[in-house]
This record gives sequence, structure tokens and C-alpha cells, in this order.
Amino acid sequence: MLNESGNFNNLKLAAGSGKGEYQTPVFMDSDVYKWLEAASYDLANVPDPELEHMVDQAIELIAAAQQEDGYLNSYYQVNKPDERWTDLDHDHELYCAGHLLEAAVAHHRATGKPTLLAVARRFADHIDSEFGPGKRQRAPGHPEIELALVELYRETRERRYLDLAAFFVDQRGSGTMRGYRLGPAYQQDHVPVREATEVAGHAVRQLYLTAGVTDIYMETGEQALLDAMTRLWCDMTFTKMHITGGLGARFVGESFGQAYELPSDRCYCETCAAIASMMWNWRLLLATREARYAELLERSLYNGFLSSVSLDGRRYFYVNPLQSRGVDSMQGRGVVERPEWFGCACCPPNVMRQIALVGHYAATTDESGLQIHQYVSAKIEAELEAERQVVLRTETDYPWDGKVKLTIEETSGNEWKLALRVPGWCEGANLRVNGEAIEAAATSGTYATIERAWQAGDIVELDMVMQPRLTEPNPRVDAIRGSLAIERGPLVYCLEEVDQEPGLNLLDVRIAPDASLRATRREDLLGGVVVVEAQGAVVDVDAWRDELYRPAPMEDLPQREVVLRAVPYFAWANRGPGTMRVWIPRW
Amino acid sequence: MLNESGNFNNLKLAAGSGKGEYQTPVFMDSDVYKWLEAASYDLANVPDPELEHMVDQAIELIAAAQQEDGYLNSYYQVNKPDERWTDLDHDHELYCAGHLLEAAVAHHRATGKPTLLAVARRFADHIDSEFGPGKRQRAPGHPEIELALVELYRETRERRYLDLAAFFVDQRGSGTMRGYRLGPAYQQDHVPVREATEVAGHAVRQLYLTAGVTDIYMETGEQALLDAMTRLWCDMTFTKMHITGGLGARFVGESFGQAYELPSDRCYCETCAAIASMMWNWRLLLATREARYAELLERSLYNGFLSSVSLDGRRYFYVNPLQSRGVDSMQGRGVVERPEWFGCACCPPNVMRQIALVGHYAATTDESGLQIHQYVSAKIEAELEAERQVVLRTETDYPWDGKVKLTIEETSGNEWKLALRVPGWCEGANLRVNGEAIEAAATSGTYATIERAWQAGDIVELDMVMQPRLTEPNPRVDAIRGSLAIERGPLVYCLEEVDQEPGLNLLDVRIAPDASLRATRREDLLGGVVVVEAQGAVVDVDAWRDELYRPAPMEDLPQREVVLRAVPYFAWANRGPGTMRVWIPRW
Repeated sequence: MLNESGNFNNLKLAAGSGKGEYQTPVFMDSDVYKWLEAASYDLANVPDPELEHMVDQAIELIAAAQQEDGYLNSYYQVNKPDERWTDLDHDHELYCAGHLLEAAVAHHRATGKPTLLAVARRFADHIDSEFGPGKRQRAPGHPEIELALVELYRETRERRYLDLAAFFVDQRGSGTMRGYRLGPAYQQDHVPVREATEVAGHAVRQLYLTAGVTDIYMETGEQALLDAMTRLWCDMTFTKMHITGGLGARFVGESFGQAYELPSDRCYCETCAAIASMMWNWRLLLATREARYAELLERSLYNGFLSSVSLDGRRYFYVNPLQSRGVDSMQGRGVVERPEWFGCACCPPNVMRQIALVGHYAATTDESGLQIHQYVSAKIEAELEAERQVVLRTETDYPWDGKVKLTIEETSGNEWKLALRVPGWCEGANLRVNGEAIEAAATSGTYATIERAWQAGDIVELDMVMQPRLTEPNPRVDAIRGSLAIERGPLVYCLEEVDQEPGLNLLDVRIAPDASLRATRREDLLGGVVVVEAQGAVVDVDAWRDELYRPAPMEDLPQREVVLRAVPYFAWANRGPGTMRVWIPRW
Repeated sequence: MLNESGNFNNLKLAAGSGKGEYQTPVFMDSDVYKWLEAASYDLANVPDPELEHMVDQAIELIAAAQQEDGYLNSYYQVNKPDERWTDLDHDHELYCAGHLLEAAVAHHRATGKPTLLAVARRFADHIDSEFGPGKRQRAPGHPEIELALVELYRETRERRYLDLAAFFVDQRGSGTMRGYRLGPAYQQDHVPVREATEVAGHAVRQLYLTAGVTDIYMETGEQALLDAMTRLWCDMTFTKMHITGGLGARFVGESFGQAYELPSDRCYCETCAAIASMMWNWRLLLATREARYAELLERSLYNGFLSSVSLDGRRYFYVNPLQSRGVDSMQGRGVVERPEWFGCACCPPNVMRQIALVGHYAATTDESGLQIHQYVSAKIEAELEAERQVVLRTETDYPWDGKVKLTIEETSGNEWKLALRVPGWCEGANLRVNGEAIEAAATSGTYATIERAWQAGDIVELDMVMQPRLTEPNPRVDAIRGSLAIERGPLVYCLEEVDQEPGLNLLDVRIAPDASLRATRREDLLGGVVVVEAQGAVVDVDAWRDELYRPAPMEDLPQREVVLRAVPYFAWANRGPGTMRVWIPRW
């Protein structure tokens, strides 16, 4: 797709070897860099000479496109060579630079090769020569460079990169950015970062910025930054987040709405915003070790993020609504069916790199031992003591089942703590070591920890009770007042028209707050999922056929019982266009 | 404002007498024409030499700007003289032409002067020479020319203009318009007019088109056109209209949403869409004499339209939401406070012409007699028989009070029917002639008719019971499910923060379906309104302070009774920015 869409040719044009017209939007380079980042993670997981060759070729092209002084941006080089850095608000030069830096760090870590990192350092040095106190003093319209510079600092230990990241953060709040007539909040210029009290503006810009700020906090320890991040996180999760972890209530400005403005149908919930949220929550988890961040990362991963990609991995949603009334003449099919690509293709390569790095989210180590945050079947290798490997194997059918088996394959015989996250949705969890029940506090929403002198062959079994459940929204959320959602484990469920009795209109279904729910594994459905059947009803709206508004109180509508069949939200829209809803009105 | 914004200077630039830069958007001329139309209605009502002089000067300028061959569009003449008619989808040449024609007809009817009508005819003739079978065969991206050509036909009896209007209508449905990447529905090019089954796309474009199509039906009697219009009207009013008569559920494309997609907070409900709806309903009423069209005209007039203008008449809403959560950093103050003017200033001059012509909507005549559709204090003069005037005087405090007194001041002594509309909201109405009760069927939603040999001095009294009431929405409307609205007479009410007890959060109020309501006249408030007090409650959401989603079923929230004070929706946002809601959750 990057070939077809012209991304590579743009770089070739900059390198002097391309043919034909430059293709916009202005940030086409960043999609190449995101692909390189994803490919690097893949190469770190599984050697693949063919992929490695493609990567090397792309890096060669990028290096050829870089200018003498280190500058690198195909759009400006081809179209406006004399106008570098003249429209920071809109033209994404530093955004593309940030994705280059991220790719370079990932590539260096994965392969040890210096090729892309050298390009990135030359560009970063050039940026450092152009921006800073006494030089250009302005932040870019789209955050991204900040977290990338911190990553480059981590890989190179070159302090200037960290300082430059902090410098860009400090420029925000001038109130002078007026991009696209949406006001300074759209571009994160409405308030100085340390004074911010609520998430606002373009959701992806907001969350790339908070991810970068959290990175800076981790390296500098400046409490004011963490305080601001905690305020924003609470504002977001207490007032502005869909149950799927989706973020950005509005199409206009792809932006956060007001507190409790959380429509199901016309929410934006951009795929890249779910990704940005995972990036931020991962950093907050590293910074604070608080389970709530791993919890939200998981919610986003399995719901608002995973919904973006089709089961065959070839098609993508840009927007992830929680309700679909089917195709309409204005919004087109792109909102009910995943397209293969987009004119603004930020999401697909972002999906690729998130899927490639999902293993990163599984576990961490610290001085006390090893923490497991996300349950996946995996081999986990860690160095808890100098030159002594700890190797664990985890086996699980999560998220379909709450049982996780961990086998210690190697360890030193010294004591260390194993911490296992018990998700907030989990009503009860049992923990056994070598078959014996352990009294570790397995409280939901915390980590259960076991400290012992582990031996190779030790087996830990975590059994989390995973029952389907009904969830209520905060009563201040107007759009879904009086509705319930079905969840099971970390998964949010939805009703799709195709699973219901023929002709049933999803606008007419109802569910009781104490409805009985039944989970069934269906290997034949949607690649193998657990479906949930709920006792529900359908109301007869015949009395309302020709009216939108009538004098109150109307008589209760006649209703008849039906079985509602729910599938995981992430799997919706894989069986043709149709209607769907997550929130079900209660009767 | 037209001077300040450059609209007049644009025309001067076209006439060769302007200075400085041309000001966009491309349809700036149309605002001048709408003002001329409004001023003409005003001149018809009350002589005003100063206004008439201003009008004559403007017409002189317009005539000076017109080109030899009749073409007239300042944007093209100044900026793209060789590119006329090259971008019909976007450049509003025919839209501006339509407003010129409307203004010219209004001016001619009001003053009898031929000046502007001559300009309009020359331009219409030029358009006729450019468009039609065998000539340019394409509709414009923004309907307006259609209804204007029919009006010009009515004023001139030149059949070519009617044929040209029908020609433009017949070009629609090519599916080739792709304006602003919103698809052909945005510009009304997704379906041939006679095959349309639902309102779709940009609401103003849809409704200017249906108004024009209804005009063509009135002149041609083609049943297929009326059938299509009836289908669209039913689709709109049964599935896509806010209780205020507001139309256009979405910001994106300023467009209709899907059936039952009617959010209170992020609806668009553009002022010009309410105006367009009144224009269309007025024509449907003339075409069919059905009360439902007068009824919707009234609902739009007093609610979704009137809300657009501040009580002092100097500031305007472009967007008319039914819920405000106060100012936010993305949407800015323009959604909670009326600005004085807009970069795209279509609404203010459209408001002006609607207010100037509101008297037109009051009454009609036909072969049977005289029909009164809207109740205003007025003098109504009509010629029911050749050269015999009927003069009625109506006195009323409507919409604050349901009593209307009609005095026959002049008549011929021959029998004729007086028809009085009894609104659908009215539970009961009494009718008296000269003090004696009349058995005329005063059924709500129909016309009560009295046929007699009227005498000068006859007095008819209509007394419509006007109690505050609660209204329920269709249960398929997700966004306001389980909520109620307060109405009284033709007025929709709303709760404004400023009228409630201090600190009360409008997200936490509740009302019972059988709440007692009390109406009180308040001369001191908002220029004199009837307020409605309702027995309500406020819930304590403390249990939800830090969570958006929790396991069901939650316990009922504690609540305490409060008195909710409601004011007419049209008067909201006249006392500074604050929160507001029309729909109140029921308990």
C-alpha cells in the first residue's frame, strides 16, 4: 500500500530518483516510518531475511533522501525547499521527524544495525540546531517529536535530545495556534502543560503529547508533570471515555467532547487515539506501577483498538462507533465497513506497529522481581540478577478463559517477587503454586504477589472467574442513559443485526438489569469467539409509527421476550454492513 | 455589517468603482440580495424614505455591476472573468442568482419599481441562454435558483423561467457531484427528485430544493412531484426532526442524520435550515391546504428559527442545539452565545427576511373564503369578490395566551367561509360569534370553519386552552430516551442554569411523567415571557464521582425534590453563557 499510495515514491523524489507527482497529505513520510518501526519489532520477534532486506532497502532510500545538513522531509524538499519550518502549525515536519526517530530506535534495538539510527541522529541534531532557547521557539501543531526525542535520548544517552523534548513541551499554551479555524485546543496550544486540568482538542494530538510528557517525567522526575498527567488521566477516564476505551467524542476536530458527552453513534473514537491511549497508559504504568493503567491499556487493546482491524487483518476502521444504524447516504460505507486504506492513512501502519509490539506490554521487571500485566501465551525472558536469566512460560486461552498457567523454566534459586495483575472486572481469583492454594491477596484491580525462592519447574496457576456481566453508565451520560452493556472478561460485547432473529430492529431491543446471561464458545464463528446470549425483549413501536413526539405519559409499549445474541465488539462488521449496538436500553 | 464585511465593496469592484481586496466566501453577493428582499418586505409594510433610498442605491450598484450580456456575479467578474459556470458544484453562481431573483420579485411587488426586476430578468435570460437541453446540462451544487425562477415566472408570466426551474430539478441524481468529499447527497445529487424517499445531505440544500420542487408542482400540477415531496416531508417529520423544528442532526456536512439520530447536544439545527423548512411548509400549505404544514411552520417559527436571534435582534446563532453543557475549549463561545456576524454570514440576512415576511404566513384566501393559519395581531385585507374588500382585525396575545379576537371591519354581506386553524397541541377550543357559542368542529390539528353572511362589526372569538404540558419522544430516539420536554402552546421550553437554584447541575435534574406544571406571566423576564415551573428532582451522583462505568444493577440514586424553572427555548442564551437543556430525564 505504501508503494501504491506513493509514500515511497515521495522519498524517491526527494532523493532524486523518483518519477511522477508528489502525493499528499504532507505527512506521507510518517507512514513509511511507522511501517519500519513495526517491521523492526517483527524482526526482533522472528528472523525474516526477506523482510529485513525490504527494511534495509527502505533505510537506504531514506538515507539517500536526507539532505547534507541532516534535514529530511520529502514534502518540503520536493515542494517547498526554501520554506522549511515556516508552518509548524500544519505541516507536520516535526511529526514526521518523530516517527523517524521512533523507527530508528526500534530498528537499532531490534537489529543492532546503526543505519537508520545514524539518519535519525543527524536529523535530530539538525532540529536541535534550529529549535531551542534563542533559536526557533515554537511547538509543532501535532505532538509526536517529544516522545520520540526521549526514546532517542534513551538509546543514545545524548542529553540534548531530552532537553529538546522538554523544550517543545514548554512552548505549549501560547494560545496562538489557530489551525483549521478550530482554535488552539485543537493543536494543544490552549494551556501550558503543567496547568492543564482536562483532556481537550484533537484526541490523538492530546494523547501523543501526554505520552511524551510522561516520558519526560520518567527521565527527569519532575513531579509537576506527573501531577498534570494524573489530572488529565482522571478527567479522561472519569468523564470522556467510551466503554471500549475509545476516545474523541466528536467528528469535528477529531476531538474530545465535553465531560459526559459520549454518543454511541457519532463518536469518533479514532483508531489512532486508542493507540495513543495505550502508548500513554503504558508509560504511566512504567512511571507509577499502578494497575489502573495496565487495566485501561487492556480495555483499549481488546476493544477500541482491536475493533479497527478486520479479522483477516487487511482492512481498517478509522472511526470506531459503538452504534451503527447501517449505511447512510452521507457517512458512506467507511463507517460500517472497513476500507483497505485511507487518503489520510495514519491508522493502518499505526495498527501494524501496535500489533507488532503487543508483546512489550506483557511484563516488566523491577528491583523486586517480575510483573505480569497482560495475559498472553508467551515465553518471558528477564535478567533479574546480573547474568542470571529468569525464563517463564505462560499458557492461556485468555481473553476467552480466565485460567493462566505459568511455568518457571529457569531461575537463580534466589527469592524474587512474581506479581500477577488481577483485573478490575474479576470478581474472584484463585492462585495456586505447584497445585497448592496460595493466600496471596488476589484483589481485583491490584497485583497479587508471591515472593519465594523460585525453582525451575515451579508452576503457578491463576484462575480468574470470568462470567458475562452487565455494566451501567454514569447517569450523567445523556446519550446512553438507561442502557446497559454486556461485558465478559476484558471484552465489551455488542449486538449485531446478523445474529438476531430476522427483521429485528436493534432500535427496539430491551434488556433487564438482572437479565440472565449465558456464555458459549463458538469455534465456527468469527474465527472462534465466546458469544453471550441474553434474555431480552423487543418492544412494539407501532403506536409511534408516524410521530416523533407525543403528549406524556404514553402507555408502556407492548413487548415480547427474545434471546439477544452478543459478540465481542472488536469482531463487529466482519459479515457485511449491518446495524450494531453496544449499549442496550433497559426496560 | 454588509459594508463592514465587504459585500458591497465586492459589487463595487465588479462595477469598477471598488477599492481594496475582494472578500470571500464566493457567495457574498447573496447576502446583499437577502437584505434587499427583507428591506422590500419592510417597505411594503411601512413606508420609510431613508430605507427606500438605501435600497435604490444598492440596486443602482447592482445594475452597474451587471455585465453587458446580463451576467452578474462579483466573485467571478473580479477573480475569474473567463471561468464562468466552470464549477457549478461549489461556486454558488446560480445560488446568488436565485437570491437576486427573489429580491427582485419582492422589490417589484413591494414598490412597483422595475429597476431590480429588470436586472433580474436580464440575468435570468442570460442563464436561460446558457442552460437547458442542448446547452449546459447540470444542476448547481446549492439549490435556490429553482424556487427563484418560479417566483420570477409568477411575477412576469414568462414561461421560460418555469421551464428552466424544472430543467434544473431534472438534472439532479447524476451521482457525479463530489463536493468537499462528502458524496453526492451533500449537494442533492444522489437521487432523481421524483424517486427520493428520504431527506438527506446538507439540510439547507435539501430544503431549498424541496421548496423549489413544491413551487414547480404548484404551477404544473405534476403529481409525481407532490408525491415525492409528501414522502420526504413524512420521512423528515417522522424520523429526522428535533422537537424545535430544528433540522440537520450533524455538524459534518451540516446534514441530516439517519432516522432517529437526534442528539440534543451536537445537533446542527442550522438557522437557515429552520428557515428553509418554513419556506417549504408554507409552499406545501398553499399546495395542499393541509393544517399539518401550517403547524410545522409555526413550530419552526417560534422555536428552532426564533432561537437564532437574540432578544435585542443584533446577534445570531448559526447552530441551534437543544442542550448546552456550557463553553468548551473546542466549540468556542459561538455555540453558547450568539455572535454578531459570521465569516459565512448566510444566517443573519436570512433571519431578517423571514422576520420581515412573517406576516405573509398569517392568512390565505381561496374560492371559499379566508383562512387564518398563524395568530398575530394584524389587519388582514383581502379581495374575496372582485373589487370588494374584506378587512379583518385580529387581536391576540398569542403565543402567551390562546385567546384570539377577530373583528370583521369590512365585508360585502355575501356568504364566505372563515377558517381558523386549531393547533395540534390544543386539547380544546371554544369558538364564539358575537358572543354566542358556535358548534363548529374545533378539532385540534384541523381548521374550524364558519360560513355565514358576515357583517361589518361581527366579532369572532377563538379560545384555545393553553396549558403547559410534558412531551415524550419516540422510543427509537436513542439520544433522549427516557426524557421529557416541557411545552406550552406552540412553544418548546428549556431549563437554563441561571434560573435554577445555585450550583444545580443540569445533568442531574429529573422530572416525573406526571409532574405538576405551573405557568406564570413574567413581564420582567426576557422581554416578557410565560415561565413554567415544574415539580422536579435532583439526583445525588456522588456514588459515581470517579467512574464512568460500573457493574449493574446500581442502587437507585438518592434524590431530593426541587422546582425546575423553564423558559421558552427561543429566549435561551440571552443572559450570558451557561448550561441549558430542553429534554429532561424522567425518574
